[in-house]
Formats: sequence, structure tokens, C-alpha cells
Amino acid sequence: MMNALLEKIVADCGEYVSQGHVATYIPQLAMADPDKRGIYIVSDSGEEFSAGDCFDRFTMQSVVKPLILMRALMDSGVEKVQALVGVEATGKPFDAFNYSDQALTGAHINPMINTGAIALCTLIAGETYEIKFARLLELARLMAGNPNLEVDESVYLSEKETGSKNRALAYMLKAYGMIHDPVEEILNCYFKACSILVNCRDLAKIANVFAHHGMNPATGEQIFSKEYARYVTATLATCGMYDGSGKFALDVGFPAKSGVGGGIMGVIPKRMGIGVFAPALDKHGNSVAGVHMLMKLNQEMDLSIY
Amino acid sequence: MMNALLEKIVADCGEYVSQGHVATYIPQLAMADPDKRGIYIVSDSGEEFSAGDCFDRFTMQSVVKPLILMRALMDSGVEKVQALVGVEATGKPFDAFNYSDQALTGAHINPMINTGAIALCTLIAGETYEIKFARLLELARLMAGNPNLEVDESVYLSEKETGSKNRALAYMLKAYGMIHDPVEEILNCYFKACSILVNCRDLAKIANVFAHHGMNPATGEQIFSKEYARYVTATLATCGMYDGSGKFALDVGFPAKSGVGGGIMGVIPKRMGIGVFAPALDKHGNSVAGVHMLMKLNQEMDLSIY
Amino acid sequence: MMNALLEKIVADCGEYVSQGHVATYIPQLAMADPDKRGIYIVSDSGEEFSAGDCFDRFTMQSVVKPLILMRALMDSGVEKVQALVGVEATGKPFDAFNYSDQALTGAHINPMINTGAIALCTLIAGETYEIKFARLLELARLMAGNPNLEVDESVYLSEKETGSKNRALAYMLKAYGMIHDPVEEILNCYFKACSILVNCRDLAKIANVFAHHGMNPATGEQIFSKEYARYVTATLATCGMYDGSGKFALDVGFPAKSGVGGGIMGVIPKRMGIGVFAPALDKHGNSVAGVHMLMKLNQEMDLSIY
Amino acid sequence: MMNALLEKIVADCGEYVSQGHVATYIPQLAMADPDKRGIYIVSDSGEEFSAGDCFDRFTMQSVVKPLILMRALMDSGVEKVQALVGVEATGKPFDAFNYSDQALTGAHINPMINTGAIALCTLIAGETYEIKFARLLELARLMAGNPNLEVDESVYLSEKETGSKNRALAYMLKAYGMIHDPVEEILNCYFKACSILVNCRDLAKIANVFAHHGMNPATGEQIFSKEYARYVTATLATCGMYDGSGKFALDVGFPAKSGVGGGIMGVIPKRMGIGVFAPALDKHGNSVAGVHMLMKLNQEMDLSIY
Repeated sequence: MMNALLEKIVADCGEYVSQGHVATYIPQLAMADPDKRGIYIVSDSGEEFSAGDCFDRFTMQSVVKPLILMRALMDSGVEKVQALVGVEATGKPFDAFNYSDQALTGAHINPMINTGAIALCTLIAGETYEIKFARLLELARLMAGNPNLEVDESVYLSEKETGSKNRALAYMLKAYGMIHDPVEEILNCYFKACSILVNCRDLAKIANVFAHHGMNPATGEQIFSKEYARYVTATLATCGMYDGSGKFALDVGFPAKSGVGGGIMGVIPKRMGIGVFAPALDKHGNSVAGVHMLMKLNQEMDLSIY
Repeated sequence: MMNALLEKIVADCGEYVSQGHVATYIPQLAMADPDKRGIYIVSDSGEEFSAGDCFDRFTMQSVVKPLILMRALMDSGVEKVQALVGVEATGKPFDAFNYSDQALTGAHINPMINTGAIALCTLIAGETYEIKFARLLELARLMAGNPNLEVDESVYLSEKETGSKNRALAYMLKAYGMIHDPVEEILNCYFKACSILVNCRDLAKIANVFAHHGMNPATGEQIFSKEYARYVTATLATCGMYDGSGKFALDVGFPAKSGVGGGIMGVIPKRMGIGVFAPALDKHGNSVAGVHMLMKLNQEMDLSIY
Repeated sequence: MMNALLEKIVADCGEYVSQGHVATYIPQLAMADPDKRGIYIVSDSGEEFSAGDCFDRFTMQSVVKPLILMRALMDSGVEKVQALVGVEATGKPFDAFNYSDQALTGAHINPMINTGAIALCTLIAGETYEIKFARLLELARLMAGNPNLEVDESVYLSEKETGSKNRALAYMLKAYGMIHDPVEEILNCYFKACSILVNCRDLAKIANVFAHHGMNPATGEQIFSKEYARYVTATLATCGMYDGSGKFALDVGFPAKSGVGGGIMGVIPKRMGIGVFAPALDKHGNSVAGVHMLMKLNQEMDLSIY
Repeated sequence: MMNALLEKIVADCGEYVSQGHVATYIPQLAMADPDKRGIYIVSDSGEEFSAGDCFDRFTMQSVVKPLILMRALMDSGVEKVQALVGVEATGKPFDAFNYSDQALTGAHINPMINTGAIALCTLIAGETYEIKFARLLELARLMAGNPNLEVDESVYLSEKETGSKNRALAYMLKAYGMIHDPVEEILNCYFKACSILVNCRDLAKIANVFAHHGMNPATGEQIFSKEYARYVTATLATCGMYDGSGKFALDVGFPAKSGVGGGIMGVIPKRMGIGVFAPALDKHGNSVAGVHMLMKLNQEMDLSIY
């Protein structure tokens, strides 16, 4: 019955596909099929439901930001994380250069915009950025319960080659003394993180660990503390859907994080994790059909936390 | 036992009073006693708990903004409200003039900043602004279950006399064709709304109606729809605590609205309503001791929705 | 021969009229005939040359700003003027609300944008704003050598009725403690100043006094000091043509001030004063044909100071 | 007599040295002696006057920007230059990231801020950036009449190593499609240009060619057209002294360009070229004693063009 509902939602949301466009700023992303749509739910009791192209793989892109934040919290603690990157919504798109004051400080950024996520890579433990990235990937695999998660090398190289805006943001962080390591090494870590391949199931599993405050429902293992889980989840609620976060809170009503690869991870605290996928994006960079699938899911299952 | 907990919280938070300052931009507010602290909880089951100066009265100030939004929703509907005022956090203080584009549009503002709330006064039904305000006051009285709620005339006149910034914001709205009625009439409605006298109990009762999705738990009456309730509550979660909303979500974790009179209204969806009061404010305009009382309350009672 | 040149310039610039639009934000201005074009030159040696509709009258609008600045300098001195209003180009249109810092200070504004000019009205001597305005009008008459200059009452009332943006700017100045008198009185002075009726001859005469460092070439009278003359003229060079000032310096090359009434006053230091008129405006608010007439005049007479 | 005047000015301006600080963001610049002060004038008739440390060498830094603009004009023409980089003052410091609109365009920048100058390097002719730089250096040598001008390698390498902000600006240009070549190559050209060693005499000679509209008074050779000369000189008048350009126009009154190396080049159209040097800078990045020397020179010699 649940699967039938999901099938219906996937089918019904096909009409929204044409309202968006697949990301083109990274050549590899432009090759995505805009008609793909998938959904996956991991519930409280461990049951799993799914529909559509839920096993198609796509790169995490910004969906990895909550994991970067979590890894930084686990490795460096709340104090260092907050000293470097604030938590307020900026009222600006994810890749904005516009800061209202002359000097850039942590108060101007948050972990869900590129500038903040790039800065947080430096707070992951590890002597090299290969090691830092390995620690991040390890966390993703552990949360997803999928030891096979890996980087899409062609997307990674494509991001690396075309990432002028992220380079600009990183050098700005360096110019204001907020990061100190070589920019290209930090960016390698960030670009690899964005290029981790996942499917809807992986996202749902990862979300479910956040929803259960760090406990892996599959194993009972406490991967991180409730305090850290709430730090990340609360940040998703206020900043997770770029400058569409406020509208998403009204329309859908639970913490979520989108990526320009077309994925969205939804966290229903204490209840479930959701992963959806549909590559065509709206003007904020959020999956159009993905947002609509979550909206319908909320209407059917009353998932809003408000 | 619950009351003992609240007494302890009120006492313990005395230490934070000296970290803030009472609002001075309205002369009447500058006369507040910074040592006052009160808390009031109306629970699910209708039980009420309280401590400290919870029956002291203070003016709502920005705490009235969710009521203005609700009244506008009830009188004009979601479509007109969203066409006039957006829902995204601005990344700016509540009284900011800084808009990044040349022309001001609804997308630049939200209902929890002054510009948005002033605009929404025009969407309340009524041929005159006296009637519009009366409808707003009626809603406040109904939600608080307190037919005696009234305006503090001296604060109202003080706001009216010194409100240059709000006048500037209102004329800006007019200059961009977002409002059409005489600015002074709209501001009279807004200033009176800000000057409604309440105590912690009133705030807790009002919050409790939001928490119960429009149903007045005291009477069973459905004052407004669940859809509208969630519209307001979700907006509080992302924008309710000014440009401290992100941090508040981490530290406290439930939707709330503060005012420079020192009051904060906390909404725990499906569970309870909370009113706190302590006039000394932090740099964002939020009650310092008020935020700390809510933080401790969350620590003791696990109220975070994340 | 000189008059023949001017006639040719007026005729040739007819083609630019269709590239612009008459100002519409004040209803009275919308009634202007976009085909009107006039030019008037008062030279060094006292000779006068003219062509086209040079005796048609129009309101000064922003062309009065250098006179407000001069009157403030004469009445309050350089120190008070600079303490209130800076002299740097803002990089923003004349009526912009966008200030990059939270608090508005004199450093954010200059005398050639509305905010600056409104503020400077308060530095004109006089117990009432009627007296202040009378002093300003007296200066305009003296410089123009025209005791008949007067306010166009219908334009004045039209500006007063529709001036929401200027009201917003004035209340913003008040909110930041930069002005203290009643906003409506200050604006009455400002709106009247903008509504002074002049023709090209008046502008050329006024410009010529600036060009001759305060000396009225007609009478030999020193109306103001060389220091004040240069203060105003230098400000015109950097900020006189709104956010088209830089381009105007390249293309034309002498200090000038435009107004949305279609007039432009050109100051050729130590040489001459020029007045042109053509009501259709470009996107910056500068007269399209007016700018082109000055450009051609420079090409023919090598008037650029660079 | 003239030299005596200059000696007096150099001596009198010693008192301003302590009001500024030598640039520290490039380690090599921090080693400058803040007490050094020199002045050099090349007059109309070819006479040369000087005083103080006028033969001490320092790096051009931003004083090279008018030469980059000229080289781009000579090699690519006005149309291409204006299509890439605007001419309006930005109201922001020379290294600002703050652009008010989301997308960066040429209209947001000018040739006298870093972003504009970096972009203009791409319009210099030459298959490689070594060749482009050689063409720029050749122009500098020709204008200065000094075939020995050369790059200070240690400053160049220091800029290259520490230039995070310029890298950020360059990648931003690239992100918005305004430049296409490899960022590091463009920056090598820009950093070398900033590191050209000159003395006050070189600056005065270069300024004198601008003052004489492209004609080298020493040889009679027309190096570039009057039109290009005025393009550059007018831009200096409105944007040459960073966000102190407006004040400088009032206080000094002729086009000039400063650099953080402590040099200022002053152009008195049709009359003379001036070079001053004093390494301690004010908050805008202009030489404090340098500005005062030019101010006193204007007072004594009436050099203001206004």
C-alpha cells in the first residue's frame, strides 16, 4: 500500500519535470536525464519503501554539506565550527559573492552555502586532504550502510576544471584569513565530496541516521551525538534548501538538503529518512519534481514538524 | 515539580540579565526593569505552569507579527499574502534598509521583519485601519482567551512619535507600489499592534493555539486552519528570532517569536505553548534571559523539534 | 557663426530624442514635450549664444542640488557640510536605498543624490523652512541674474503628493539622527527647490558664476568664494551626472549637473557656462539629447578639461 | 625658486607621515621607510623641478592601472574596453567583493579597481602573457623616457605568493565569463605590472605624456591619441584615488592615481606631470604625505582644473 502511494507520487510528479532544467554549469551534470524520478523511505521500524528510479545513481553535490558539517563537528567540536562558520540564513543564493560588510567573517556565512562548506573541510581531521576526504567518505558509507560509496571521477574532474566560482570563494576565505591551507587541496576535498555517487536509498539511510539523532537504526550503533545531530538538522531546517528554505518549510515542513545533482535528503526527526531524485532544477537549484514529491508525501503522511 | 523546575530556571537565568540592555529607541520601553523575569507554560492537557514575574505586563512589539500574518491569511488568503510578502530569511536585521536589488519586491522581505509586517496590515479586512486593528486585537484576545487585552496608549504614542525608521520602511513600500493606503493610517495600525499589552500567560495561550494547529484547546474551537497555523509556525522557525534565528534553532530548537518588549512566544507543535519575559535584549533584539530560559527548558524537557 | 553651430547641434540631436523617455514619476513632468531642445551659452567675455527652445521653461529638479550645496556652504561652512554629507560617488542611482553598512552615515552619501541634498537643506540658514527656501531662491535669482525665478506650484504640489521615495529617504536620515527637523517641512523646502522654473539661459548664467569661481561676470560681484565654487564644481565632476558621471567625463569632459526635468547645466571652469534642455531621459535620468548636444559641443569647441 | 618651494613642501609634509601606515599585506612593501618623501615636476616647457627622495625607487602598484588601461585601449580599442570594463565609480574600496546584483558585469567595475585592471590585461595584444606584459612595460618605458624600467622580482614573487584576494577577484571574473585565459597567467602579468620599479621622475614623465594628450614633450612623438589620453585622464578624475576620489577632487583638484607603494602620479592637463612618493598610507590606500604635498602644491600654484 505504501509502495503504491509512492508509485502514484512518482507518476503524478512527472508533470513538474518540464518546469525545471538540469544543471549545466558542470558539463557532466548536463547529461542527466530530466525524466528520471525516484523516491525511497526508511522508516522508524526499519521498513523500507520505494518507487521509480530509486536505484539510479547521481552525485551528492550539496547534499554532502550536512556530512561535511557533521564530520567537522565530530573532528573539531562545536566551538571551532561556530568560530569559523555561522548558522544564519544569508538571504542569498548558495554561490553568492555579496557580503554586506567589507570584511568577510564567519557571521556572514553558513554551512549550507559553498563558502561555509569549503571552510569546514579544513576542520576535518587528517594530515592531508586525501585523509580528510577519506574520513568524510567513511562517514557517508557508515551512515548509508553502503561500503561501496565512491567518487564519480569524471564529475570530480569536471568540477575541478570548471570550478571558477568555488575557487573565487575559497580565495576570498583565504584572503580574509579564514582558511590557511593550499586552496587547490581544500577544493580537491570539496569537489570529491560533491562527486560522491549515491542513490535514493543511500540518501534515505543517511537521513535516517540524522532523524534518529546519530543512532544507526540498522545496527544500534551511535555514530555521533544527539547534540551534533540536532546541530545539523536544525541548520537544514533554516538553510537547507538554499534561498528557497523558507518556502520549503511552509510547503513541506521538515528539514531537508538538496543538491544540483537532483537529489534531496529529507529528515523527519525521530521518524524516518527520505531520499528523492529528479534532475531538473528550479531557479534556486532545488529539484522541481523532488520538492513536489516531498510536498505530496507530506500531504499524504502528515510529515511536517510544524 | 514542574513549577519548581520553572522557579529554578527563572532564578538561574538571572545571571544573563546583565549581558543585555533594555530597548531604548522607544522612550517608554527604556523604563522597563531589566531584572524582571517570568515564564508560563500551557501544556497539551490544558495544565498551566508558571514562575517569576509571569503576570507582569509588557507590550508585544514584534511578537504580534505572527498574529498580523495570521489575520492577513484569514482575511485575504495564502495567495494574496505570498504575492505581497515572501517567506525567506533576509540575512539582515529586522529593520534593515539594505536590499540587494534596485527595486524592492515581496521576494526581498518576510512577515517577521518590520517591512513585511507593515505591508501585511493592508491585507487585514476592514474599511478603515481602526477596523483592521480591531480585527487583529479580537484575534489576539480570542487566542489568549483574554478579552481584556488592550493597547498601552503611552507606548503607542511613543512609537508613533519616534518611529522614523518604520516611516521610512513604509514610504519605501509605497514608493515601490507595494502598499497604497495612507502611510500614517497603516502605521497607526502597526504601532497599536506592537503596543498591545500582554503577560507571559497570554503569550503561552496564544502560542498554544498555534501549537494545536488553530484549535483552541480550552474550548475546542477551531480558530483557523491547520494550513494557516503551519504557515505561521514554519515562518517562525526560519525567521522568528531576527538574524539570530539560525542559532536559536540549534540552541533551543522550536519555533518562537521575540519582541523588543522582552517577550518571547514559543510554539511546540502538537505539544504546548510557552511565554517568557525578561526585558534586557541581546544585539539581535532578543531577550537574553528569555532565550536562556527557553534553552534550559529544552535541556530539561527535550522540546526541540529537530 | 557660433549661433549657426548651435542651431546645427540642436537639429542634429533630434535623432536622439526617441532613445529616451520623459520622466513619469511626477505626473506634471510626464506632460513635457519630448521634442523640445534648447541650448544657451554665456561666454567668458560676456557674449551669449543660443539656439532652439532655449527660452522654454522647465523645473530645475536635480540641477538645483549644486545650489543647495552652495547655500549650505555659504550659510554653515565646509566643516558642517562635510560632517553631514560626504563627497564620494556612491556607485548607485540617485534614489538608491542600498547602503552597504547597517547604520547610515554621511560617508555613504553625497550632495548630488537625493538623500544628501535633503540633508543639506537643514544647513541653510533661517528659522523656518520658508525662510531657508527663500534664501535658496534668492541665490538662484542672483546667480541667474533673473529676479523673476519662481516655483511651479503645480509641480511642487505634484512632487509633494507623490514623493514617497523622498519621504522614505528623509525618514531614514531622521532615523539615523542625521536630520532633526520635521520631515515634511524639510521636504517642502526640497520639493520647492526642485520645482524652480528656469530656462536654458538661466542655467547658463548660473553655471557661468560657478565657472568664474563665484564672481558674477555681469556685475563683477563676488557672490561666493573660489573655495566654495571649486567644492561644488569638483563634486559635479565626480557625481553630477548620477551613475553616468564616469561615462560623461569621458564623453564630454566638463563638470555638469542634470535634472529629470530635462535640463543640464555645464560648467567650463574659467571659460563659460552652458544650459541645455531636452526632456527625454536615459536610464540614469540624464537628458539623452542634452548629453549629445554637450558631446557635440565639446567635439566642436574642445571644452573638455581633461 | 621653484625647487625651494618643493623643498619646503617636502619638509612641511613630514608631519603627516605619522598619520598613515606603510602597506603590510605584501611583506616586501612592509619594509618601506615611512619617512621617505619625494616630489618631481615636469613642466610644460620641459623644465624639471624636484625635491627630497625623488630618485628613490618604489613599485608602481595601482599607479600602473592607467597604463594597463591605455595599453588595452591602444591594442583593442574603446569599444572592446568598454564592453569589458565600465567607467563608473563603484563607491567601494579598490578590492571590494560587494556587487549589488547577483551576476557580475562590466557595469559593476572600472579600470581603477583591481577587478577592472585584471580584466583589462586580457585586452593587451600578444600571444602569451609574457608578451602582453612586455608590451605594457615597453609603454611605461616609452612614456617615462626610461629604458631601464624593470620589475622588482622580490615584490612580484611576494604579490604572487600572497595574492589571495586578487586570485578571488580573477576567478570571479572567470566564473562570470568575463575572462577566459588561465587565471594564473593573467595574474602573473598583473602582479608584474604592479611590481615595476619607478621613481618620482618616472611618474612625472609618464603623467606629462597624459597631460599632453599622448605627445611626448621630450621628443614630439605622439605615443597615443588625444581621445585615449582623455579616456584615461577623465577616469583618473572620477576613480583614480580609490574611494577617496571625491575628496581628492575637492582638496587637490586634478586627475591623479595612487598606489600602495606610496607613489602618486598627478596629471595637470595641457600643463604638467607630477610624481610624488611617501610610503605611509591612509585608510583608502593613498599616500598621506603624498596627498598633502599635492594639496600644498595646488595651493601655491593653483593647479586645480575646477
